[in-house]
Amino acid sequence: MNLAKRIARLGTETAFAVSEDARAWASKGNAVYAFHLGDMNIHTPANIIQAAHKAMMDGKTGYAPAAGIPELRAALAEDVSKARGVKYGMENVSIQPGGKPVIGKFIMALMDAGDEVLYPNPGYPIYESQIEFLGGIAVPYGYVSTPAGFRLDRDRIERAVGPRTRLFVYNNGQNPLGAESDDEEMQWVADFCLKHNLWVLADEAYFDIRYSGTSKSIVSLPGMQERSVILYTFSKKYALAGWRLGAAIAPKEIADVISKLNVNQESCSNHFVQIAAVEALTGNQAGHHEIIRTLKERRDSLVECLRAIRGVSVFVADVTFYLFPEVTEVYKRRGYADQQQFRLDALHQTGVSFCSRSHFGKPAPGEDRVFVRFAYSGIDTPRICEGLQKLKAYWES
Amino acid sequence: MNLAKRIARLGTETAFAVSEDARAWASKGNAVYAFHLGDMNIHTPANIIQAAHKAMMDGKTGYAPAAGIPELRAALAEDVSKARGVKYGMENVSIQPGGKPVIGKFIMALMDAGDEVLYPNPGYPIYESQIEFLGGIAVPYGYVSTPAGFRLDRDRIERAVGPRTRLFVYNNGQNPLGAESDDEEMQWVADFCLKHNLWVLADEAYFDIRYSGTSKSIVSLPGMQERSVILYTFSKKYALAGWRLGAAIAPKEIADVISKLNVNQESCSNHFVQIAAVEALTGNQAGHHEIIRTLKERRDSLVECLRAIRGVSVFVADVTFYLFPEVTEVYKRRGYADQQQFRLDALHQTGVSFCSRSHFGKPAPGEDRVFVRFAYSGIDTPRICEGLQKLKAYWES
Repeated sequence: MNLAKRIARLGTETAFAVSEDARAWASKGNAVYAFHLGDMNIHTPANIIQAAHKAMMDGKTGYAPAAGIPELRAALAEDVSKARGVKYGMENVSIQPGGKPVIGKFIMALMDAGDEVLYPNPGYPIYESQIEFLGGIAVPYGYVSTPAGFRLDRDRIERAVGPRTRLFVYNNGQNPLGAESDDEEMQWVADFCLKHNLWVLADEAYFDIRYSGTSKSIVSLPGMQERSVILYTFSKKYALAGWRLGAAIAPKEIADVISKLNVNQESCSNHFVQIAAVEALTGNQAGHHEIIRTLKERRDSLVECLRAIRGVSVFVADVTFYLFPEVTEVYKRRGYADQQQFRLDALHQTGVSFCSRSHFGKPAPGEDRVFVRFAYSGIDTPRICEGLQKLKAYWES
Repeated sequence: MNLAKRIARLGTETAFAVSEDARAWASKGNAVYAFHLGDMNIHTPANIIQAAHKAMMDGKTGYAPAAGIPELRAALAEDVSKARGVKYGMENVSIQPGGKPVIGKFIMALMDAGDEVLYPNPGYPIYESQIEFLGGIAVPYGYVSTPAGFRLDRDRIERAVGPRTRLFVYNNGQNPLGAESDDEEMQWVADFCLKHNLWVLADEAYFDIRYSGTSKSIVSLPGMQERSVILYTFSKKYALAGWRLGAAIAPKEIADVISKLNVNQESCSNHFVQIAAVEALTGNQAGHHEIIRTLKERRDSLVECLRAIRGVSVFVADVTFYLFPEVTEVYKRRGYADQQQFRLDALHQTGVSFCSRSHFGKPAPGEDRVFVRFAYSGIDTPRICEGLQKLKAYWES
């Protein structure tokens, strides 16, 4: 069978292998503490479900416009404008069946074959996969660990940029690090993108998953709204991941191209889900606040439990539902040379399942510190404490 | 702004312009009889809505597997196997957010840049758009009008095939013609594809929208299941177009590639919609039967009304919810040289809105007969009769 050549360049989320390992272990009757999933075990707020049901009953079951229903585009433009301190109208909003479609469509719209794209590594693995699949050259940049948390590795970014660099993927509120820029760093990113005339994918999937402080978008900096596409998703803020709804927020010309891609690729996003999303944005926010309260409680417990383990250190991220603890000391003390074995042994000895750094991209040459990713979106606080106690006993033994 | 070069090759559904014209005319207070829409004005059956609501309430609001939930993949494999007289398992099923994603993913998986793809014209405009967008060469084939209905133009297909031809798009139960192959023609297509070693996109979107006889799939012919990808959609059979759910049914190796594309492009299809689709397939079929009864009544009325107009002839399609009447005599009698003007004048004189042949691809050199497309999925029988009476009076005046 001759598959198209492009298929050889298609990557995936290797973290699915972790889910498989956890499922296999659970199927033998073992307790599993699932920290590997970015999925949420929190239900969608009732008012949103009710709005979806009403819309179905009202016959909102036929096609919607490719760019989304006007009510949702207007509501989202208003919400994003207010939260980011800029002015967008509905003409800037292209509704998508999730956040991922924004990554692919951004690249399709703005990257030619052979163009280079700067993307974060460790980072969400779909950036690299989609860049390469679509014929571009994925150029990774990394982070440095500082006492104030993870910071962009500016030297590496400066070395990586070249005449063919066209796009910059900026995942502020970062998966898996939980990193975010302070004002000075964000301005540096903006200056860098202006200087090198780069388009920016502002992946703001976790913009509203915040436990203290205020989120800031790069589009609020002078000159950046004109060269940025925001990846917006309803998945996290309203526990709607399985509903598949997101949006690209972009200059009108780009938003139009993205919607034209929708005409070709999906027709439109689910009609009644869009109506429910209007309720999500404009209705009672108690459900969202409860989601944040729940996640914060989990984060605080997880931080406390991780810090109680000898040889583990962790920076407390104020955004995302991930922690990226350093476990170098444990790893070396126990004599490991294989991060997957380290992960699997923890699963089989304690039931605690987490992702390795390598699930978020190939490590750079010289990377010698060991980090793992804990997600707390899919596990309740009592289970967090139970699992981490077992992990502490095992790693300290 | 420098858009990627591929964007210049991206087509669209030009029929949206017809919707715009109709909307503009209606907004001035005029009655519009909408025959231009492939959308349905029939509501989703209640048992399917109920199943979706229950699934939402049960917390099925998180991610589903990229390939779809196992229950739906198994139910669909069984349904498709039974209806087509072949054997598929759940490993052959990749659930998609609609039918269109199957077109794009089939091409991405099997076509390299520069490959040629045979596709129907008149036909669904997304084939040509996606082939060209993804770097292929779209090679049209047509149909001939016979007393028994539309038939494939075999001479043209034979002339069009060449050493670079790789894929064949076969939309049996065709939009806009309503054409379908008899046994002899389908065998000819199979022989042709085997001889030239072509992969087949079996677009069977209208397989279950049938008013008499039995649908037959090309995958039931020897050697074809191994080289075909079925485009399956829930949109028409269960009036679920706005829910966005379909599937690719393919040899396992291709189904796996398609699902890997889902990991990259969409994550997954809506979780609770998939659960509702299990109810659609395995639950009470009264809703589906009522949809067919309603559509048949409309078709019969529309055929009668069209045939009552002097200079209009129409073949009665037993599948799809489209009719493709020939209006050459009316067109010439009234002295037209522009099919869009012909369409617009009918709208503005009678309120009847339909699509032109050119909304389904560029006419071939020498095409001198004039056809238009009437869809009856979005208009009730009394309105069909009312609109067609006005059209008769106008076209015969």
